[in-house]
Amino acid sequence: MSTQASEISKNTLRVRRLGIDTYSKPVIYMRHDCHICKSEGFEALSRVAVSTDKETIIASLNIVNNNLLNPGEIGLSDAAWRMLTPEENQAVYLSHPDPVSSHRHVRSKVYGHSLSDHQLMQIMQDIVKGHYDDIYLSAFITACAGSRLNFDEIISLTKSMINVGRQLSWGSEIVVDKHCIGGLPGNRTTMIIVPIVTSFGLVMPKTSSRAITSPAGTADTMEMLAPVNLSVEELHKVIEKEGGCIIWGGSVYLSPADDILITVERQLDIDSEGQLIASVLSKKVAAGSTHVLIDIPVGPTAKVRSLNLANELANLMITVGEEIGLNVRTKITDGSQPIGRGIGPALEAHDVLAVLRNDPGAPEDLRERSLELAGDILEISGKVPEGKGYTEAMKVLDSGVALEKFRSICEAQGEIREPGRAKYSRDVCAKLAGIVSDIDNRRLALTAKLAGAPIAPTAGIYLHVKLGSVVSRDQPLFTIYAEAPGELDYALDYISAQEDIITINPDG
Amino acid sequence: MSTQASEISKNTLRVRRLGIDTYSKPVIYMRHDCHICKSEGFEALSRVAVSTDKETIIASLNIVNNNLLNPGEIGLSDAAWRMLTPEENQAVYLSHPDPVSSHRHVRSKVYGHSLSDHQLMQIMQDIVKGHYDDIYLSAFITACAGSRLNFDEIISLTKSMINVGRQLSWGSEIVVDKHCIGGLPGNRTTMIIVPIVTSFGLVMPKTSSRAITSPAGTADTMEMLAPVNLSVEELHKVIEKEGGCIIWGGSVYLSPADDILITVERQLDIDSEGQLIASVLSKKVAAGSTHVLIDIPVGPTAKVRSLNLANELANLMITVGEEIGLNVRTKITDGSQPIGRGIGPALEAHDVLAVLRNDPGAPEDLRERSLELAGDILEISGKVPEGKGYTEAMKVLDSGVALEKFRSICEAQGEIREPGRAKYSRDVCAKLAGIVSDIDNRRLALTAKLAGAPIAPTAGIYLHVKLGSVVSRDQPLFTIYAEAPGELDYALDYISAQEDIITINPDG
Repeated sequence: MSTQASEISKNTLRVRRLGIDTYSKPVIYMRHDCHICKSEGFEALSRVAVSTDKETIIASLNIVNNNLLNPGEIGLSDAAWRMLTPEENQAVYLSHPDPVSSHRHVRSKVYGHSLSDHQLMQIMQDIVKGHYDDIYLSAFITACAGSRLNFDEIISLTKSMINVGRQLSWGSEIVVDKHCIGGLPGNRTTMIIVPIVTSFGLVMPKTSSRAITSPAGTADTMEMLAPVNLSVEELHKVIEKEGGCIIWGGSVYLSPADDILITVERQLDIDSEGQLIASVLSKKVAAGSTHVLIDIPVGPTAKVRSLNLANELANLMITVGEEIGLNVRTKITDGSQPIGRGIGPALEAHDVLAVLRNDPGAPEDLRERSLELAGDILEISGKVPEGKGYTEAMKVLDSGVALEKFRSICEAQGEIREPGRAKYSRDVCAKLAGIVSDIDNRRLALTAKLAGAPIAPTAGIYLHVKLGSVVSRDQPLFTIYAEAPGELDYALDYISAQEDIITINPDG
Repeated sequence: MSTQASEISKNTLRVRRLGIDTYSKPVIYMRHDCHICKSEGFEALSRVAVSTDKETIIASLNIVNNNLLNPGEIGLSDAAWRMLTPEENQAVYLSHPDPVSSHRHVRSKVYGHSLSDHQLMQIMQDIVKGHYDDIYLSAFITACAGSRLNFDEIISLTKSMINVGRQLSWGSEIVVDKHCIGGLPGNRTTMIIVPIVTSFGLVMPKTSSRAITSPAGTADTMEMLAPVNLSVEELHKVIEKEGGCIIWGGSVYLSPADDILITVERQLDIDSEGQLIASVLSKKVAAGSTHVLIDIPVGPTAKVRSLNLANELANLMITVGEEIGLNVRTKITDGSQPIGRGIGPALEAHDVLAVLRNDPGAPEDLRERSLELAGDILEISGKVPEGKGYTEAMKVLDSGVALEKFRSICEAQGEIREPGRAKYSRDVCAKLAGIVSDIDNRRLALTAKLAGAPIAPTAGIYLHVKLGSVVSRDQPLFTIYAEAPGELDYALDYISAQEDIITINPDG
């Protein structure tokens, strides 16, 4: 007993918030002459368990060789502070973290063995507890990428992701949802579909993602018009009042394991089929959905590049859906070019508003795509007979009912905002006359990212042409917007070193 | 011209060494209100290029929200400082790093495509330049693990690893070397073989590794007796004088790409066959070797667990050797239990000295294994006729010539040292009487690591029994040594939660 008490006081330091922002990574700082480093054998980058009486976190150690810290003190980065939530100067106890037992399942997967339900569950639990560092997250993602998850593993991964998060319920027999398999810049149909279908009394608590590898996610775009970081309590109030919402999924902690995996996937620029399915469907089940429409755009530079792959993915989605009790319908759509004109949060928000307002200049393709998908959802929900969805949806949009509904939803989420305009811009013009024959979605998206999107919300690209547009020499093809001159230059430098991102056929 | 100059001065800050040790990871610290963060869109964990007129490094950004830095200053971690080598207060230029072009080859490998000579070369070049963060290193290692490198890729990887490092030459037609495919605790034959074969006038410039996933590498053990961090110039002097050495390979920068990959492999506890072969053979070629003996211990808890796998690995080693102009002989040995009694740098060093001194209590198995392997090397070099190697080696050891040679080599490397003894120890005793029927190498090694080895050099395990030993109840099976009470407890906690690491058969 007394040994234990002295052991604890020996391994105790007082915390100080150092005001160092290490993003989501908890980092702790200890003096090089700290007795605990010596007695425990801690060195720079050691993983250390830091405990208060309420909470334990595992953090990475940086060693300080100056007077940043006083003897007896330990420094915490902002992320470590947020996770541990100590009082300033509180005593914390340091120890070696237990070995992460699910790491051996990851190794087993790396060596090509398949993982059981139970093993995937343990991995997801440890990930949510913050026990996986970047190296292990990357190994897990890589080991599962490129079709290395079999059918059973995809189901288990989906179920595990659901289990480690929370699950919402709405007291409604039918709860609809939609998801688009990314890769298509500017495709913000969600923000038009939700007001349409909820105008019919359907419940559609839509949680969207922020950008992963793209210049904007639906949550980033919606945030230009209304708050999207809602708590579950706030979300419930919005749904009670409006039947629908468009919020950020991360803020309601629906798939916390996926939220962590996604930050690493983004850096690797890797999407695995199995993880994609688990990510999408786990969030739908967690959100309490019963009927889900999956939009799969196909095109040479979209995420899904061939009809075969799209069909394969569609079948997997439907079958995994059946296994987890979710009614999934898929729709394979044209992914050969961006939807709408804007790429980047604010620029896309302007497009959405134009469609809802029935502006004469509103992008026709965004309107059409939204009506088709909204029609499908109306049909699978049973609200509207098969074949009648599109026209019913159009009535609600054209009459302005959808716009009114969108405004109500924004207000229920907190307020309606006006999307801004970027300060710096530059036109990129046609080098020759002809017909636009090809648009490279990926490089266009990369250019928007280099210009600052989505972190700089008004940055991005505004397209002046579509496939088939007739252009004259020196006519602007698109405009790059940026919030800082450095970022504008960065995007322009990239473009100048590239083959044409928009191809013009002079014989057209 | 004037724009460029103002652009440079705009993106310039004065450096300060912050005295924060982030191990091998370069980290920079910038104020949250720094104009460059805003104009360039840098945020916490952004990768940023930092340049002086001589050097550019890519570092990870931490944002500082306090007065650690003055306006106009940028802080550097120790690693960033070492890599950039600026003067205190020197102006440095900040910019977005170029995208790492070989990252797409890694993605391609993740998706199951094989890599060309050229692609692997680009990956190795970027790794050596420090352009790969942990996430990409982990993805590359994982994507290559579990037999995912084909024969051509293994050859390309080996050649690339050779090409990005330096290559030594010795002005001798025959240069011998040996390597043991790890996993066998205490197996320090190298330190006995080198003095034996160099007594015959052979050239054997042995570079060894430090521990990767084990409680000690040969370099760690040799360091207990002599300096091992030699520069190439110092190495040349030692070889000129003695014909042989036992030094740390990392200090002569023989396979810098492998040195970086190994730190991540260690954390993942993953060894891929292809990377193993490339790692071993690239270092041999880089060290200027012509004839190499590969020792492959096989046992249920050794790295190689079956004769089939050992034969497969042996064949691959020989064939890849042929492709890169290296004469490889393999020897499959018994890997069912540790060699010698000590596990951990200092404890193993005591074993080596006992064999060289012909102490009556010297571990017989270490002596036998060393003589067999030394004999093989003498035979492949042509110094001694086939079949005579073992007895010729024995003569040199028994006569004390090998001990004298070892002392000369130590002195040539800098000095002879006496290995220390750990302050804290605890016996682990037999719970019943019987015959030792099984020893778990892996868990024994893990226990030695938990006790602090190799970072605490005198920590580890001393074995009192071998397979077949007859033991009585409560007789010590092994002793755990530690340099700190916390680490001793950590090892004991682990053992108390385990099934027996040494199995005793009571019916023996």
